[in-house]
Amino acid sequence: MTAYTTRTKDELQTEERAVRAKFEELKARGLKLDMSRGKPGKAQLDLVMDMFDVLKTPEDYLDGKLDVRNYGELSGIPSAKALFADILGCRPAEVFVGGNASLNLMYGVISKAHTHGLLHSEKPWSKLEGIKFLCPVPGYDRHFAVTQSFGVEMIPIPMTAEGPDMDAVEAAIADPLVKGMWCVPKYSNPDGIVYSEKTLARLTHMKPAAADFTLMWDNAYSVHEFCGDYVPFPDIISLCREAGNPDMVYEFASTSKITLPGAGISAMAASEANIAYMTKLLSIEIISYDKVNQLRHARYLKDKAHTLTLMKKHAAILGPKFQTVLNALDKEIAPLGIASWQRPMGGYFVSVNALPGTAKRAVALCKEAGVVMTGAGATFPYGKDPADSNIRIAPSLPPINELEAALEVICTCLKLAALEKLLAK
Amino acid sequence: MTAYTTRTKDELQTEERAVRAKFEELKARGLKLDMSRGKPGKAQLDLVMDMFDVLKTPEDYLDGKLDVRNYGELSGIPSAKALFADILGCRPAEVFVGGNASLNLMYGVISKAHTHGLLHSEKPWSKLEGIKFLCPVPGYDRHFAVTQSFGVEMIPIPMTAEGPDMDAVEAAIADPLVKGMWCVPKYSNPDGIVYSEKTLARLTHMKPAAADFTLMWDNAYSVHEFCGDYVPFPDIISLCREAGNPDMVYEFASTSKITLPGAGISAMAASEANIAYMTKLLSIEIISYDKVNQLRHARYLKDKAHTLTLMKKHAAILGPKFQTVLNALDKEIAPLGIASWQRPMGGYFVSVNALPGTAKRAVALCKEAGVVMTGAGATFPYGKDPADSNIRIAPSLPPINELEAALEVICTCLKLAALEKLLAK
Repeated sequence: MTAYTTRTKDELQTEERAVRAKFEELKARGLKLDMSRGKPGKAQLDLVMDMFDVLKTPEDYLDGKLDVRNYGELSGIPSAKALFADILGCRPAEVFVGGNASLNLMYGVISKAHTHGLLHSEKPWSKLEGIKFLCPVPGYDRHFAVTQSFGVEMIPIPMTAEGPDMDAVEAAIADPLVKGMWCVPKYSNPDGIVYSEKTLARLTHMKPAAADFTLMWDNAYSVHEFCGDYVPFPDIISLCREAGNPDMVYEFASTSKITLPGAGISAMAASEANIAYMTKLLSIEIISYDKVNQLRHARYLKDKAHTLTLMKKHAAILGPKFQTVLNALDKEIAPLGIASWQRPMGGYFVSVNALPGTAKRAVALCKEAGVVMTGAGATFPYGKDPADSNIRIAPSLPPINELEAALEVICTCLKLAALEKLLAK
Repeated sequence: MTAYTTRTKDELQTEERAVRAKFEELKARGLKLDMSRGKPGKAQLDLVMDMFDVLKTPEDYLDGKLDVRNYGELSGIPSAKALFADILGCRPAEVFVGGNASLNLMYGVISKAHTHGLLHSEKPWSKLEGIKFLCPVPGYDRHFAVTQSFGVEMIPIPMTAEGPDMDAVEAAIADPLVKGMWCVPKYSNPDGIVYSEKTLARLTHMKPAAADFTLMWDNAYSVHEFCGDYVPFPDIISLCREAGNPDMVYEFASTSKITLPGAGISAMAASEANIAYMTKLLSIEIISYDKVNQLRHARYLKDKAHTLTLMKKHAAILGPKFQTVLNALDKEIAPLGIASWQRPMGGYFVSVNALPGTAKRAVALCKEAGVVMTGAGATFPYGKDPADSNIRIAPSLPPINELEAALEVICTCLKLAALEKLLAK
């Protein structure tokens, strides 16, 4: 095989006929596969079923002297705070434990910034015109949807191998209307990039013009290696404190991909001043999140070390799925020179950069052949990838045999979209 | 015993010395009792421990074909929608099932009305000046705290034996800035009043000036009789639909006082158009609430009839506690003519109207003697009871022997506060 770009028009036409025939053959198989979201597979869900056996007698429901079954204890139960503090590397007093969804806590911060303002806000953001947010791209569509929903203007920041392009970030924060930045610092969604220490140093030492500039630090994959050993990662709360920016960050985490996506627990970590401020606002909204589930998780996961043993079991299921994706891309696509991709060690995605101008078409072709992917463009603010190139592959849900079938479709569609593009020139 | 108001000054002074001596004696006992909140007692929590045994094998976690352990199904699982629809009398398609806190869903509606507007809003409420809300008084402090938190002006509406004073309501809604009304329609908090059919008819047929006027219908005590049989109550969603006001109401309910306060499930019922509108807004905030807990509840509570058998067990624990309160008031306070109170058949409170001008003092005296009550005034917007009269007694948490001790304190403090007031004239 030679790269498409080195082939003659005749050669490309021949290839196009062959690839289209293959596509029609795949279509005829009537596949129905969903790879649109980073959903764990059934085997991963089955891993943790013993979690529901840890609380049995009424006495089991005491966390110290606290009966977790009753009202109260808004900021979370002590043992769940200790668990997240251990996993994240911060102090228990810097943790607020929520319900089953960290997205809910993130939305809460942005929503309350608009309606009430944050700790250092001069006024609620809803009273300002032209608020902006920095969005490293490619990034997570649900983050962008939150800021979009509040009418916040989103500024794309290119990702580098070390994290967001810090020159671009430092230039942008001179604008007092730039109020914050979305970050997935470890195994970024979708690239799987880990922010470097240099990036962390520059981020935590920033001097934004806005006093209430906030890093929305979604540490979604803090212990989510699927390949190799656990990789330590610095605690952002401590780093910001040491850099003299203690209140500049809200960190988020959850057990959605440790225990169960539909029934885990989440946490928000921040300076004690931020936690106190946000807890007061949240006291109007809820008496407490589900403390029985918090205790169940604290008892089941125990601590970071024990959590990491569970993550090894997830890795044993996930690793081969990621390898299946990479194998197919390496074999079918690499020689053709029509795409590049990341080789992440953790997280939930493989980020593919297809031939510019072909991502939308490739994803549409996949859908036609029964494989639903994340919409092309979804990894950019407003769903607009200027290069129409990035495609997010989520290999976690299907079993390996279905994944192989899906990859056959994906590779065929990447080829066909590239051929159509090259032949249309 | 004769009424205080018929006694001479000398007689009152003698009584005051005796009551103060009694107060000092009670204070010396060093009690530490919390009656500030409608918290179920431990015996009630223990009632439902078998709830955690209903899901065992991985197959148990299927609701139809839906694996409730994974992401998705934002508006709730089918069986939990069916359960709430059965309890409330509406259709499953009119139900959104949430997390452990109905307050969270209520806050969500008010918050989104401000940031995004409701279905029939011309613009988000945050873009308007002088928004108002109707607040039947006495009412629930957490409701008032939500609207106060958003800077909404609250207009007190007097409660009558049939519900809110509808003449006052109908006059108020001619103002297009009046955007809604808080209601606890069955066993109102704190009076325990059940809205009459006449009140329901007038409420559902209202023609408010504001197109997005919303009844915030907190049906917190829909199956919460502690005395006598279940009392049927009309479904507000159907009534509003039939009255030509299908989108005028959001109803809220939870299992906080059916299963567990810290770990129940909640629901929001509304027209299908409202549910679709709110689900779309909520899709930005959360992928789904805890569906395992939803399924656990659906399997455990089964349906309305089975839920009512559980409520009988709660009533067997709660009934005697309410009787203890009423017995003490009847014996100690009634003959003195210094207070009146409701005799509810359900709900979680006894609402006492003390001699005007004495509620704050009585509650402060209780605290001095080790009995923490809901703050006087808390049942009014901004915490301001113009008559300084209403006191909310929450008898559910303490066991009977502690409750008897607490009532001795409460009755003594009601007397002492009244005597101080009468003697100061």
